[in-house]
Amino acid sequence: MQNSDVSPITRQVVEAMAKTENPRLKRIMESLVLHLHAFALEVDLTRPELDIALDFLNEIGKSTNDSHNEAVLLSDVLGLSSLLCDGDPDLAEEAEALLGPFWRLNSPPTPNGASICRSETPGPRLLVKGHVIDEKQQPIAGVEIDVWQASPVGLYENQDQGQADMNLRGKFVSDANGDFGFESVLPAGYPVPTHGPTGGLIKAQGRHPFRPAHLHFLLWKPGLETRISQVFVHDDPYIGTDVVFGVTPGLIGDYAKQPDGSYLLERSFILHPGEAFLPKPPIQ
Amino acid sequence: MQNSDVSPITRQVVEAMAKTENPRLKRIMESLVLHLHAFALEVDLTRPELDIALDFLNEIGKSTNDSHNEAVLLSDVLGLSSLLCDGDPDLAEEAEALLGPFWRLNSPPTPNGASICRSETPGPRLLVKGHVIDEKQQPIAGVEIDVWQASPVGLYENQDQGQADMNLRGKFVSDANGDFGFESVLPAGYPVPTHGPTGGLIKAQGRHPFRPAHLHFLLWKPGLETRISQVFVHDDPYIGTDVVFGVTPGLIGDYAKQPDGSYLLERSFILHPGEAFLPKPPIQ
Repeated sequence: MQNSDVSPITRQVVEAMAKTENPRLKRIMESLVLHLHAFALEVDLTRPELDIALDFLNEIGKSTNDSHNEAVLLSDVLGLSSLLCDGDPDLAEEAEALLGPFWRLNSPPTPNGASICRSETPGPRLLVKGHVIDEKQQPIAGVEIDVWQASPVGLYENQDQGQADMNLRGKFVSDANGDFGFESVLPAGYPVPTHGPTGGLIKAQGRHPFRPAHLHFLLWKPGLETRISQVFVHDDPYIGTDVVFGVTPGLIGDYAKQPDGSYLLERSFILHPGEAFLPKPPIQ
Repeated sequence: MQNSDVSPITRQVVEAMAKTENPRLKRIMESLVLHLHAFALEVDLTRPELDIALDFLNEIGKSTNDSHNEAVLLSDVLGLSSLLCDGDPDLAEEAEALLGPFWRLNSPPTPNGASICRSETPGPRLLVKGHVIDEKQQPIAGVEIDVWQASPVGLYENQDQGQADMNLRGKFVSDANGDFGFESVLPAGYPVPTHGPTGGLIKAQGRHPFRPAHLHFLLWKPGLETRISQVFVHDDPYIGTDVVFGVTPGLIGDYAKQPDGSYLLERSFILHPGEAFLPKPPIQ
């Protein structure tokens, strides 16, 4: 957006922010204010409507606690989190996904091949075989892979007193062949938490709150771009209407049913040289 | 903003919101999402930056309580509240101002001419003579006028344990001549509360936190457009750099010094036919 042809108040605000020392903050806030003011004028926002919006804003923080992050949920539901995902959305090895509100730091280190069921977790068994490679298809060893998922009834352990702490979460390290793997259960789709203001919004918008079933992956190694990904169960009824807009063609996985009734997911990730980062954990 | 030429994710979000029953909510959210996504792409917002922004968002609600409203403060400091003010900013009788974060419901009904000092409040005395008229300069009786202000040391009673409850607040009713009035003390300028995330933002932006001294007025009568106004002390050092962009030429008052050292403010308000409303009180 251009700074010309805006209201006198908008110009005053931009001028007041002009002394911002950090150039990145200055750039971001200038663009934010220009868009925020343009939005308010475009819809001719009234003062009573602003009151409602500011109440909504306060409720976001009030709804957030150690085990729930309403701001992350709102960002997800407005498509902002998915919008920032890089990578080719059509390629299985490259596609990125939003982090979501359920990642926890310090997932238990787990040997390759072990199960991430840390308490009794009924449901179809799932075997995951992962493979981490570089742009030349060469294996990358020593990548830390965080995995987290909902149970077969659609609940993360932090939402479910029936599950042990850190159930269906684990941290793996790729071996010399770039391989990692674990046993688990088939994840189920679930509704995002709707008890807060974001739930009220999507209800007023006539939207369902469901996410299609998926596994979360976060791959991290110094010197490589961190990959945040999700792999969706291909035949989930909500595969086309994820409430947080996280599904891309490349993120749909082939959860192959085996003769014994269990499932097998094989998945490769290509990592690129770059700066590793760990996101801020949305919950504790 | 137009819906064409946006990213596939943005289009998905707009489509998902298309079933919103309330047409006003639909219009507002569509414009909001288009601007939010355009902003994020324009500045190439990174995931770590989004994490910081969502933390900031959560902190707003966490900083809000019965006697402080951080969301209103943020809206004020970003110029959004002032942007929504109607009325001719150059005309004393017409100019509107933002409500600010300090209005309380149920100000004490007070007879015209009485003082709003409800506990000992040192400082220069001030006499206010108000006048409410219609577009044809005819007096309007029966208008309820809420008045609130900071003390001569720049604190509202809800910020200052040394002041009685509802000190420097009062509710008046215009008489048959459209007149109302009260005694008080000269308000002082003050810094907006800076203990929350908004304070951190304006500090990072190199902005001072001060508002020039002013009186607040809220005029309300069924059948007339509610007027929210502020009248600023003309020689305040911050008159040109109000941190919440509330000063317009029409809102600068003539606080006339009298021979006895007290001050006199005379002020007329023209009200227009329309719908009366009471804003949501930002604090209890």
